[in-house]
Amino acid sequence: MVTSKRLSSPSRPLAVGMIGYASMGAAHSQAWRTAHRFFDLPVVPEMRVVCGRTPGATADAAHKLGWQSWVTSWQEVVGRDDIDVVDICTPGGSHLEIAVAALEAGKHVLCEKPLANTVPDAEAMAVVAARAAEVGVWASVGFNYRRVPAIALARQLIEAGRLGRVRHIRAQYLQDWLVDPDYPLVWRLRKDEAGSGALGDIGSHIVDLAQFLTGQHLVQISGALDTFVTQRPLPHGSPTWTDGSEGSDGMGEVTVDDAAVFFGRTDEGALATFEASRFATGRKNSIRIEVNGSRGSFWFDFESMNELHVYDGTVPAAQAGFRRILVTEAEHPYIGSWWPPGHGLGYEHTFTHEIADFVLDVSAGRQPSPSFADGLAVQRVLAAVETSSRNASRWTPVQGAGA
Amino acid sequence: MVTSKRLSSPSRPLAVGMIGYASMGAAHSQAWRTAHRFFDLPVVPEMRVVCGRTPGATADAAHKLGWQSWVTSWQEVVGRDDIDVVDICTPGGSHLEIAVAALEAGKHVLCEKPLANTVPDAEAMAVVAARAAEVGVWASVGFNYRRVPAIALARQLIEAGRLGRVRHIRAQYLQDWLVDPDYPLVWRLRKDEAGSGALGDIGSHIVDLAQFLTGQHLVQISGALDTFVTQRPLPHGSPTWTDGSEGSDGMGEVTVDDAAVFFGRTDEGALATFEASRFATGRKNSIRIEVNGSRGSFWFDFESMNELHVYDGTVPAAQAGFRRILVTEAEHPYIGSWWPPGHGLGYEHTFTHEIADFVLDVSAGRQPSPSFADGLAVQRVLAAVETSSRNASRWTPVQGAGA
Amino acid sequence: MVTSKRLSSPSRPLAVGMIGYASMGAAHSQAWRTAHRFFDLPVVPEMRVVCGRTPGATADAAHKLGWQSWVTSWQEVVGRDDIDVVDICTPGGSHLEIAVAALEAGKHVLCEKPLANTVPDAEAMAVVAARAAEVGVWASVGFNYRRVPAIALARQLIEAGRLGRVRHIRAQYLQDWLVDPDYPLVWRLRKDEAGSGALGDIGSHIVDLAQFLTGQHLVQISGALDTFVTQRPLPHGSPTWTDGSEGSDGMGEVTVDDAAVFFGRTDEGALATFEASRFATGRKNSIRIEVNGSRGSFWFDFESMNELHVYDGTVPAAQAGFRRILVTEAEHPYIGSWWPPGHGLGYEHTFTHEIADFVLDVSAGRQPSPSFADGLAVQRVLAAVETSSRNASRWTPVQGAGA
Amino acid sequence: MVTSKRLSSPSRPLAVGMIGYASMGAAHSQAWRTAHRFFDLPVVPEMRVVCGRTPGATADAAHKLGWQSWVTSWQEVVGRDDIDVVDICTPGGSHLEIAVAALEAGKHVLCEKPLANTVPDAEAMAVVAARAAEVGVWASVGFNYRRVPAIALARQLIEAGRLGRVRHIRAQYLQDWLVDPDYPLVWRLRKDEAGSGALGDIGSHIVDLAQFLTGQHLVQISGALDTFVTQRPLPHGSPTWTDGSEGSDGMGEVTVDDAAVFFGRTDEGALATFEASRFATGRKNSIRIEVNGSRGSFWFDFESMNELHVYDGTVPAAQAGFRRILVTEAEHPYIGSWWPPGHGLGYEHTFTHEIADFVLDVSAGRQPSPSFADGLAVQRVLAAVETSSRNASRWTPVQGAGA
Repeated sequence: MVTSKRLSSPSRPLAVGMIGYASMGAAHSQAWRTAHRFFDLPVVPEMRVVCGRTPGATADAAHKLGWQSWVTSWQEVVGRDDIDVVDICTPGGSHLEIAVAALEAGKHVLCEKPLANTVPDAEAMAVVAARAAEVGVWASVGFNYRRVPAIALARQLIEAGRLGRVRHIRAQYLQDWLVDPDYPLVWRLRKDEAGSGALGDIGSHIVDLAQFLTGQHLVQISGALDTFVTQRPLPHGSPTWTDGSEGSDGMGEVTVDDAAVFFGRTDEGALATFEASRFATGRKNSIRIEVNGSRGSFWFDFESMNELHVYDGTVPAAQAGFRRILVTEAEHPYIGSWWPPGHGLGYEHTFTHEIADFVLDVSAGRQPSPSFADGLAVQRVLAAVETSSRNASRWTPVQGAGA
Repeated sequence: MVTSKRLSSPSRPLAVGMIGYASMGAAHSQAWRTAHRFFDLPVVPEMRVVCGRTPGATADAAHKLGWQSWVTSWQEVVGRDDIDVVDICTPGGSHLEIAVAALEAGKHVLCEKPLANTVPDAEAMAVVAARAAEVGVWASVGFNYRRVPAIALARQLIEAGRLGRVRHIRAQYLQDWLVDPDYPLVWRLRKDEAGSGALGDIGSHIVDLAQFLTGQHLVQISGALDTFVTQRPLPHGSPTWTDGSEGSDGMGEVTVDDAAVFFGRTDEGALATFEASRFATGRKNSIRIEVNGSRGSFWFDFESMNELHVYDGTVPAAQAGFRRILVTEAEHPYIGSWWPPGHGLGYEHTFTHEIADFVLDVSAGRQPSPSFADGLAVQRVLAAVETSSRNASRWTPVQGAGA
Repeated sequence: MVTSKRLSSPSRPLAVGMIGYASMGAAHSQAWRTAHRFFDLPVVPEMRVVCGRTPGATADAAHKLGWQSWVTSWQEVVGRDDIDVVDICTPGGSHLEIAVAALEAGKHVLCEKPLANTVPDAEAMAVVAARAAEVGVWASVGFNYRRVPAIALARQLIEAGRLGRVRHIRAQYLQDWLVDPDYPLVWRLRKDEAGSGALGDIGSHIVDLAQFLTGQHLVQISGALDTFVTQRPLPHGSPTWTDGSEGSDGMGEVTVDDAAVFFGRTDEGALATFEASRFATGRKNSIRIEVNGSRGSFWFDFESMNELHVYDGTVPAAQAGFRRILVTEAEHPYIGSWWPPGHGLGYEHTFTHEIADFVLDVSAGRQPSPSFADGLAVQRVLAAVETSSRNASRWTPVQGAGA
Repeated sequence: MVTSKRLSSPSRPLAVGMIGYASMGAAHSQAWRTAHRFFDLPVVPEMRVVCGRTPGATADAAHKLGWQSWVTSWQEVVGRDDIDVVDICTPGGSHLEIAVAALEAGKHVLCEKPLANTVPDAEAMAVVAARAAEVGVWASVGFNYRRVPAIALARQLIEAGRLGRVRHIRAQYLQDWLVDPDYPLVWRLRKDEAGSGALGDIGSHIVDLAQFLTGQHLVQISGALDTFVTQRPLPHGSPTWTDGSEGSDGMGEVTVDDAAVFFGRTDEGALATFEASRFATGRKNSIRIEVNGSRGSFWFDFESMNELHVYDGTVPAAQAGFRRILVTEAEHPYIGSWWPPGHGLGYEHTFTHEIADFVLDVSAGRQPSPSFADGLAVQRVLAAVETSSRNASRWTPVQGAGA
């Protein structure tokens, strides 16, 4: 006789519908499946439905990623009564429409970055999110790298005043997947779908990190955008999210930036430099950020994501140096839920932490971070880069960031 | 009207029962939950039952880790008809009894390392496993670090002859959790339960890696074991797996090694050095291995587990150097199932890979690797270290490894 | 009876007079003493006279640094018949007068960087140098970091086409000696003497390295200068090279930049970013430069000056990575004259190489590198940074660098 | 009219005679030329005479290295009245005879490592040195790596108790110049001249470092020596220091070890591991040493010789980590005499420091460090390794190191 005790279902699920199932969708799915296994969440996420445009592929994704069902209409997800959270993993051009509909339908929203492809879209989203927040419906944007434990630790150090007055922020996000001129003209290289190129896709992350880590806002920007390879082969009938009519072979125009360089000043007088590129040969997903303050510094490199290097400027010169903190101790942010010291985490766990934080905040009835307002702030910095770039790199004020 | 398509259950599950649910159990559970989400497996693991000794804690673990049910008798798991795989995550002293029973009951077995606490136990297990293999019942031992993609890549390089004739193997596994003399006398510090200390717990991993990477076997050993802190406070009534009678406060004797140092020669004449310690202050889970061959070398450090450093000795001197390969490309072992280049993995994924490989092998009717024979080979090296240590560190032949 | 053979003096000395004896003077002296001991030079430098303004200190310096005699008038050095080379180690404001006088007196000139404090000064110097070159009198500017063997190797790689088309240059020169607001107002912080701050002192090096390494010229610049601490304590009657009237205690105004950030485009379309700061807490003399090309990349960090990290983009993805070349092989630039592989060099050897190269070029009757024209080119980039900074960071053409 | 003041000769020279002028001779010469330029020495070394066996080559060396004269008889150097110091840079087999003669002639002696090729030789030297010390004639052995500033800093940390009780010493000295089996049978590969192979040549350095850094002595050893390539081509009539009769082509036997591995225990119970090899492909001059204590740890790698990595185990876990101290501050050992922070030193400066220390000690009438007794202590450890290796790697007591 089998005596094993069958477990009942968890009492309070949080029903999730996810729109989009590509790379971000896969990462989010793993996080939705995993978060409650490691973090003490008051509610257990239930992966109720995933939405894609192509039935077969969507069904496959649902099966592979662990969603209970699938649909091809995001409107249907938004309209369902049994959905608590809408998780938006589509390209930026579609965020406004989906997020607004979801919020207005009373669903909490987690939206992938960048918040939108344009500042007006982002503004509209922030307005709707602010209104929704008044009735306890929450919106958050997915800057997942904030959830690297080493980054969260760095934020703690700055908040505790350990760096003193911040003088320099130095951030780079380097990739190299466009070095080959024969790489095809995918949707990320078309302004109509992607909004911008390296600037919005990866530059947005380092702008958010800079503002998140220091708690300061960029108030003016000088920048330049470059497109090194301006014509690329059209992809062979690859489906795109929006309605793309290009299906023939041949070459098409790259309408976004390959690389963005810019510097800025913050509302507290720090000088910040940024570089985002998809042409940095040998750099795959190299995110580096260093902050120098009057009392100390830190630097971080995502290629060694379990480390934070901290310099304490108050130590006597003979003993001073950058201390390589292996951010794998139970005392470190997020780590207490994971493995023993020295057993590092990977990329995917940034999403697990994002989902865990989101669920905790939503359950507690408080604004998750980063908010749509934070996402809008990033968007306005990106817009200032574009404006400056079009305007001979002149200093350009960041809208809404009163200096 | 809701039009979402509900997914049917996967057609061919592989039913798993896990014995033990502590740290290794948590890691295995995450892997059982995850493997089929990223790897194309012909069967989908079903986490049917977990077994522990204490009802409440076992129920909690089942709930947290995602097992459908729980029991307190491993014999019950082994005896069930609806279990295909028994995953043994208990301390080494219990492996023999459970593994043999499971294999004889026709269950595939995945057994945590070390295979056993003694060579005779390991031998008995290997015999039973060999017999089971004849009828398509498979056994494997969980040396998970073989599944670090960088390690798997290093193995490929050696197999392809890229290092030439191997001259040196240099391996260290360093931790520091025993530096504090007030750390209590947990079961891992008692020979009756743990078999040995740093030697079996972590030294076993680097012995296995050395043999796996080079494809060679250690044939003789000179070694020494040290216990730096010989008395430690007894833990306060902490439950242990076997029947421990010590419950009072006070001090108890540490009966295992704190550190093990040894060197050896392989069947092909390489010289290998090993060090395993729990007293290496500042080293949390530092696994390092370097192999030098006549044509090249590599080194690996688990603290940067997504990297392999490879030296090609055939390159002209002016261009030669250790190449830091970021092992995050689709072409690298295991990586094709994960994220884009540069988005690294963490500790837990070694288990995901282990489970995926195990399921693939078992499904295909072939011996998973490492086998119990491989686990026995490691055990015999450890035994040679102990013998040598007792015998003034004299060279000691490794039993069964004909030189 | 003593049978030892006394060595005669070398037959063909090259008589050197050095103006200035502070930190650069000490470095140059060590190089003048050392170069012919390790490099095969056709003539042996003879350290005939050193010039300073204060008799006692100059005599001490002469004694300590190994100069045969000393004077307090640079005009006297320039006017002597028995001097072949004038080595100018004074602050930038005095370079024009000394260098022109020396060249017109037929002395070869090695002049510390920056070439001058202003573009007009630098232009005048370049004109005189060009005229002198016609009669075999040579002038060179001391960008010593070109002589780091790893940098010289990187230059060879780019010249050989190993990086393909250069897309990105990324350079930083970071120090932190001004973080303390009580650090006094030394001459380097006063525009009248130093010309500029971090920009000219250290920014000049990375601009020169960028142009030297790639063989390209910056044609337009957008930049910003910041002075974080605008008032500093006056030093206590410290003598300065020019006639400084400030001797009292109290505070004085910092009239140069603490930090400079800028980006630029080269005549071949590369995008370059630069940052020079004396406020980068924890960074002592951190010079980093990375170049990304269509076929490969390299990066260099002066804190590990004996290494160059090279990425070959033509290697299959599974084997690609940055190769850490230990630049200590006989096949590497300069190294054949030094020690066996793995026995690295230090900062001072950049000067030994500079002197050796200078002596070899002058002896062979050919233009040493970098020329005053090269120094002028750097100066014009720095001027463009200043112009851009004053002009809302607008793109500013680099004078003379036809785009 | 020339008004320059000619400098008089320094009043109190210290006259040096050097025996041998090969690679060590070149390094020593640079140090003798340089030490008083950077360090305040009470006497100025005068490089009076160098001694070699071949007249032409010796004359060339004298000229190149800056010695005033040359001879071909070391006895003549030792016998001269105008020599204060004899610097012995010959192979180990000749050390006894020269050093004893020099000391008995009242000359201070600086002798390259290893002190001798055999323990009896080293013992005899130590006896003579002790006797000489009684009359103020001093002897020292050239373990130059003690003079790496980072190593000297590490010694200070241990002396100050910052590491607590030392548990582990982990040292490696790896080279790869013998990987090619066609590398010829040079004198370093013949026991009659070199005494031993990797063990004495490079293993001696790490044994000395281990004892110097910890202040402890190895009291017992288990070790093994291996010779991977036992036959090598004879060099073409290359002159050797002793009278070598092999001049023909053909193969000869390698009579020393290619690699040495050993572990030991110190008089205070630390466990030490050592590896010295000339077959570590890709490792050029890789000296690594790590010490773990109850309160902290450090590690050092000569490939980054200007860094020391220090772990403070008393720091809370969330902030702990290895601190990378750039050992280039004025407060660090030796550095005050050199360059500003961040401007690192190289290999050669270990000799400059050695000479400066030697001159300071000898001038002050005190024993320089390391003494011949220290050199003998190292020699006895090496002998214990050889004995253990011949004796099945059994634990072997280190003679004279009472446990």
